[in-house]
Amino acid sequence: MEKLKVGIIGAGRIGQVHAKSITYHIPQAEIVAISDIYVEGAKKVAEELGIPNYYEDYHEILNNPEINAVLICSSTDTHADIAIEAANAGKNIFCEKPVDLTVDKIKAVIAAVEKAGVKLQIGFNRRYDHNFAYIKSLANEGKLGKLQTIKITSRDPEPPAIAYVKVSGGIFLDMTVHDFDMARFIGGEVEEVYANASVMVDPEIGEAGDVDTALITLKFKSGAVGVIDNCRKACYGYDQRLEVFGSGGQASAANDTPTNVSYINENGNSSDKPLYFFLERYMQSFTDEMTEFIDCVVNDKDTKTTVNDGLEALRLGLAAKLSVAEHRPVKLSEIEA
Amino acid sequence: MEKLKVGIIGAGRIGQVHAKSITYHIPQAEIVAISDIYVEGAKKVAEELGIPNYYEDYHEILNNPEINAVLICSSTDTHADIAIEAANAGKNIFCEKPVDLTVDKIKAVIAAVEKAGVKLQIGFNRRYDHNFAYIKSLANEGKLGKLQTIKITSRDPEPPAIAYVKVSGGIFLDMTVHDFDMARFIGGEVEEVYANASVMVDPEIGEAGDVDTALITLKFKSGAVGVIDNCRKACYGYDQRLEVFGSGGQASAANDTPTNVSYINENGNSSDKPLYFFLERYMQSFTDEMTEFIDCVVNDKDTKTTVNDGLEALRLGLAAKLSVAEHRPVKLSEIEA
Amino acid sequence: MEKLKVGIIGAGRIGQVHAKSITYHIPQAEIVAISDIYVEGAKKVAEELGIPNYYEDYHEILNNPEINAVLICSSTDTHADIAIEAANAGKNIFCEKPVDLTVDKIKAVIAAVEKAGVKLQIGFNRRYDHNFAYIKSLANEGKLGKLQTIKITSRDPEPPAIAYVKVSGGIFLDMTVHDFDMARFIGGEVEEVYANASVMVDPEIGEAGDVDTALITLKFKSGAVGVIDNCRKACYGYDQRLEVFGSGGQASAANDTPTNVSYINENGNSSDKPLYFFLERYMQSFTDEMTEFIDCVVNDKDTKTTVNDGLEALRLGLAAKLSVAEHRPVKLSEIEA
Amino acid sequence: MEKLKVGIIGAGRIGQVHAKSITYHIPQAEIVAISDIYVEGAKKVAEELGIPNYYEDYHEILNNPEINAVLICSSTDTHADIAIEAANAGKNIFCEKPVDLTVDKIKAVIAAVEKAGVKLQIGFNRRYDHNFAYIKSLANEGKLGKLQTIKITSRDPEPPAIAYVKVSGGIFLDMTVHDFDMARFIGGEVEEVYANASVMVDPEIGEAGDVDTALITLKFKSGAVGVIDNCRKACYGYDQRLEVFGSGGQASAANDTPTNVSYINENGNSSDKPLYFFLERYMQSFTDEMTEFIDCVVNDKDTKTTVNDGLEALRLGLAAKLSVAEHRPVKLSEIEA
Repeated sequence: MEKLKVGIIGAGRIGQVHAKSITYHIPQAEIVAISDIYVEGAKKVAEELGIPNYYEDYHEILNNPEINAVLICSSTDTHADIAIEAANAGKNIFCEKPVDLTVDKIKAVIAAVEKAGVKLQIGFNRRYDHNFAYIKSLANEGKLGKLQTIKITSRDPEPPAIAYVKVSGGIFLDMTVHDFDMARFIGGEVEEVYANASVMVDPEIGEAGDVDTALITLKFKSGAVGVIDNCRKACYGYDQRLEVFGSGGQASAANDTPTNVSYINENGNSSDKPLYFFLERYMQSFTDEMTEFIDCVVNDKDTKTTVNDGLEALRLGLAAKLSVAEHRPVKLSEIEA
Repeated sequence: MEKLKVGIIGAGRIGQVHAKSITYHIPQAEIVAISDIYVEGAKKVAEELGIPNYYEDYHEILNNPEINAVLICSSTDTHADIAIEAANAGKNIFCEKPVDLTVDKIKAVIAAVEKAGVKLQIGFNRRYDHNFAYIKSLANEGKLGKLQTIKITSRDPEPPAIAYVKVSGGIFLDMTVHDFDMARFIGGEVEEVYANASVMVDPEIGEAGDVDTALITLKFKSGAVGVIDNCRKACYGYDQRLEVFGSGGQASAANDTPTNVSYINENGNSSDKPLYFFLERYMQSFTDEMTEFIDCVVNDKDTKTTVNDGLEALRLGLAAKLSVAEHRPVKLSEIEA
Repeated sequence: MEKLKVGIIGAGRIGQVHAKSITYHIPQAEIVAISDIYVEGAKKVAEELGIPNYYEDYHEILNNPEINAVLICSSTDTHADIAIEAANAGKNIFCEKPVDLTVDKIKAVIAAVEKAGVKLQIGFNRRYDHNFAYIKSLANEGKLGKLQTIKITSRDPEPPAIAYVKVSGGIFLDMTVHDFDMARFIGGEVEEVYANASVMVDPEIGEAGDVDTALITLKFKSGAVGVIDNCRKACYGYDQRLEVFGSGGQASAANDTPTNVSYINENGNSSDKPLYFFLERYMQSFTDEMTEFIDCVVNDKDTKTTVNDGLEALRLGLAAKLSVAEHRPVKLSEIEA
Repeated sequence: MEKLKVGIIGAGRIGQVHAKSITYHIPQAEIVAISDIYVEGAKKVAEELGIPNYYEDYHEILNNPEINAVLICSSTDTHADIAIEAANAGKNIFCEKPVDLTVDKIKAVIAAVEKAGVKLQIGFNRRYDHNFAYIKSLANEGKLGKLQTIKITSRDPEPPAIAYVKVSGGIFLDMTVHDFDMARFIGGEVEEVYANASVMVDPEIGEAGDVDTALITLKFKSGAVGVIDNCRKACYGYDQRLEVFGSGGQASAANDTPTNVSYINENGNSSDKPLYFFLERYMQSFTDEMTEFIDCVVNDKDTKTTVNDGLEALRLGLAAKLSVAEHRPVKLSEIEA
């Protein structure tokens, strides 16, 4: 069987993750080219992984008729434009999240993708996490009955640099966006958002116009309620948990840890903290999402994590921002769709 | 040393719990009399525990000069009036919660207690629970740093009878009131409440004018945020958990279970559900709160769980009701104090 | 219904435990008298619990025709003689373990009990522990299939005083005897014992002719294998676990802990050590064994923990001693029966 | 930097595991050739991983002067002879365990390796397991104090084919050999072995001259005691645990599981079984042992898992066999060294 030919746009951290997944774990695909505006970065990855071509200009990838699918791993502000170009060039697309920080741009992507009839999958990798995917499967099998309460804890080990905070779009679009997607993944569409936010970690984050601690209440169309608690810093590491309560039972995912060892002495019983780094915590999920994308393209299946999912997660983020600004619950219908 | 002489008003379930704690576990006190409007009930308890006197009319207890302290374990609607009478009679008072469902009545109790110079402790037994008290001690010792997020899960195994729902004051005054007290116990005073509520367990509860599933967001004066999730029915039993996250760490209390046995076979690894019944789950806390009350009276210490705590928990409940009614965040300052 | 009249011989720690269980938790029985060679001790307990009579000489209990059952809680060396006298006096007997440190004496007790037609229950309280009893019930229900491997961990928080070590009969008769009974409770009769022992905690224990760390291998008649690991000192407290593996699954009991709280900070995730003191760890089991004894007497049922169980546990201890002395596996049939 | 050139002898399951580790995770090395007596197997692996040469005859690897290190992944009976040839050819050697089932053959390998001055590492991958390696590090750091009791549980999910059982050398040389190595890894040298064994899983295993359930007691030279419990079949999967108890504390490793999800409903609280397949359970350890081997060769360090470790594990297995045969504790000094 001929391998699917893939081009990667962006050779930074996440581009490298996907490049390795394909090279080492996905025999149905091969990487034909990688590009980066910092071309030395593209060259280095190409050499390490035996990728035959590297470029500064991603158009060389889009213009290569041999390439069937592209992974958009460039900086966030370029995602939408490149996605539209890629769709116009007839490429299937894997696009890192967020697609964009505006509704209009995402709608333009949706339009381009529909017109071109290509596939587009958004990189909401947490849907592919072993723990969360298992809870989703329990819900799908009816093991949880009618869902009533969805609780998501998502705390980072360290806040990002202040320079990044300033351009990030704020905690709701930058960090909570993953949790909004998880909320929709488990609970379906959301009707209303109420967000409570504080600056408790670092006053500089507040001075940069953002918050660092948030508690977001969700009302789902199903009648279920949800809550997301975020913090930019947990001293014990990366805290990523999910609890789903329904009429049929409750499922909860604890954190992954480096070992399963308990050590007990006169001071108590101790065990590992959660895995600290997101790439370590979610590594398998990155491979699994890419495996699914390649499978969708090769076997002409619909992608399950679509650009519409990216749009809805953004709208939830915008609703949360509005809720904080106006200090009131905000209906999702108030946000442009 | 002479024992503290105690009278118990109300020989129902909770009156019996306290009667047994004193008889079996608190050698500094003795029960001199017990009363109940259903006098046969008082007689039965008196005989079982060797209490020398039983009455139909609680005034016989209040009028007995030998009795130093009374436990008010009668029906909720009588708590405030009896407390006022007991204060006027110079008795130290242990009063079951809620003190009353109105702010005015509680303020009248506060006034009477202050005027009489007697002690009053409210039966918020969960403060004395081994798990929650330990988390409180971690917070007090600074082990959690500055508190940021407080999460309380409180779900009942079964909804109460519809007849009870109708007179209960609603889920916020009847069930969440305990969780509001826990929130204040850990996080201090609350500034604002936003409550999200649904009828998901039983439509009859909705027809009775109440809700059965709720998610209440709290903003503390300290800047911390909190969330309480309630449900009138968890198919797996009585779910009582607390998680406190701060700059110094996180503490979380799992449920108590009948055994610590794991059983693993080809179907998976299984262990016990939480203890089902509140008396089983919180039995030790009832003894411990009574031990503290007796100690406060005998050794002339201030009670730590005061009538003001009862008032503030009520105000939080009223704020939650208003939040649902007006679908907006409600400042606690909007509620009569 | 008339209450069963009970006399307690020995007012020390364990006598008090049983006295409280009966007074506070077993309404079918009442304590009529308590004796102790240190009569002030008996007096103190009698006053605290409202026991009408106390004596120096236990014969006053045996001679009281009103008393139906006696609890033998005196020092070990007196158990057998008193049990025989009590049987001859027609009393039903609850006897603390060990019955005796010699086979002959226990056989004399068995003969006396049989002749008198009275009931005798041995105080192997761990059979009544919530965790171990639940594992036994899983085995009885066939949930574990055919049992293959039984593992018992039993470690004390602190070694006993050297003076006690010298008269204790050694670790196998003093400490392991409980584990031998647990092994038989779960796995049935034992065919062979091999014991490996060291002095690793305190050389004085070795000088006193005993060992402090032991690993005992058991071969059951069923073909199952078992292992008991003992230590006189675990720095983290009282370690009491059981694991049973069979063709149908595995059940394991973790230690009981004071709380179910996890505390996590930058140093890791920590939780409570096991309960430290045997009375705290096994308190409920003492009440439950006494409840069963009283029930057997009142309702004329056979006791389930018999003097024969005491004999077999002793024989296993003697086999373990012989195994260490001769450094070889010892068949239980080599030990006088 | 030039990459270390490696040849792999044997393209079966474990050969493929190592080939992938080097290809995907160890940039300091490259595989130059792979051989297998079933040459189609070698060809397939070579093509999949881009290995330039494949052979039927491993001598082509040994004769290639460019190749610096060889991995011996052929069938057990060939390990020793190939290792000797490889040493004579001046290759550094990674040899799968067991090196051989006889002491003499292993000693011949030791002699050849010493004479040639090459490195040899044995594939005791479990030493590199995240859980067990962490316990070892706790022991090394003194966190466990003086070691007293070492408990190893090792149960397979399914017994091997009877045909394999017949040539395997028996459970002690085939299965327990890993556990003997773990015992030495943690506890140091062993003085005496006592093995208790039964046929409880499948009578055919007994008819083939082997046992399927074993409990092996170890006495270490340090005075510590140890126990290994083995079974050829655990209905719940692959059970791999370690508990180390010392004067300073206890460390225990629970099984790894596919997820960290708890699901609780009216039937109880359930979670995942252990990972079922050894390659899944120990995958990271295979990569880590190979990384260490390559590092030792490239940077001229001594290997930590030596052929002597293979010899000592074999001697423990032979002692266990003798213990069962003669039904007595066997000193390791009775086994040829």
